[in-house]
Amino acid sequence: MTIKYYWEDFRPGDTAEIGSKTVTREEMLAFSREFDPQPFHVDEAAAAQSLYGGLIASGWHTCAIAMRIMCDGYLLESASMGSPGLDNVRWYKPVRPGDTLRMTRTVVESRPSSSRPEMGLVKVLWEVYNQHGEKAMSMEGMQMFRRRDPGATA
Amino acid sequence: MTIKYYWEDFRPGDTAEIGSKTVTREEMLAFSREFDPQPFHVDEAAAAQSLYGGLIASGWHTCAIAMRIMCDGYLLESASMGSPGLDNVRWYKPVRPGDTLRMTRTVVESRPSSSRPEMGLVKVLWEVYNQHGEKAMSMEGMQMFRRRDPGATA
Repeated sequence: MTIKYYWEDFRPGDTAEIGSKTVTREEMLAFSREFDPQPFHVDEAAAAQSLYGGLIASGWHTCAIAMRIMCDGYLLESASMGSPGLDNVRWYKPVRPGDTLRMTRTVVESRPSSSRPEMGLVKVLWEVYNQHGEKAMSMEGMQMFRRRDPGATA
Repeated sequence: MTIKYYWEDFRPGDTAEIGSKTVTREEMLAFSREFDPQPFHVDEAAAAQSLYGGLIASGWHTCAIAMRIMCDGYLLESASMGSPGLDNVRWYKPVRPGDTLRMTRTVVESRPSSSRPEMGLVKVLWEVYNQHGEKAMSMEGMQMFRRRDPGATA
């Protein structure tokens, strides 16, 4: 794939819609059975009796879906070098079977790497909304990208 | 499953080994192809040329594996009510095919819910180490549990 986006292309304040995805019951159950088999994620009857009143997605599944939306939305066309971590992961609203999630990206900060002149870091806020316009999740992460123009004094 | 652990059973300062898991190349590729198909996660040749010098697990896969270790280690025997979020997710060392991850849990804080007398919250630090004793990942999360003895004045 051709690289379209380098570190310089992520400017603080920029906001973009990056994609959406409808989550099926089968996908939810498959993920939860493998990684998060708590009753309210894998057992319809137990979920109905829980705080949530029905089956909900694992928060990790919502994160993984968000990652895929990021990949398809811009990351696979970027000079991505991975990520050192995340902050402020918040699950505000349960994600339920059939929900359609859409996602926005806002660039919060940008700085060159202090150790690697070929790299820059970007702090990004991602927000995930459901089909009712409710915010289902948000998180902030650092993304590392190659620079189009490596700095001599980064 | 019988409930063994309620909110009262998670006491600040408590540390425990909660389990381990060996990650295969096939599991890594399957997860990354679905959720995080960046070249260094899905393409051996591209990964060899990358910053990482070889195929590495998606950080989200490491998180999902950590979730499963939590489930098997204590959560499925607990009165878990889910989680509102996470902080300080850090990926320190790449996870590579065949790595064996082991995980510890430390209770950082505990408080009753201010809105639900039947519920308490616990802040937990999870640390994931590889077979060389290197810390691969850590994160802090809030977990919600039912109380064994619901508070009248929570």
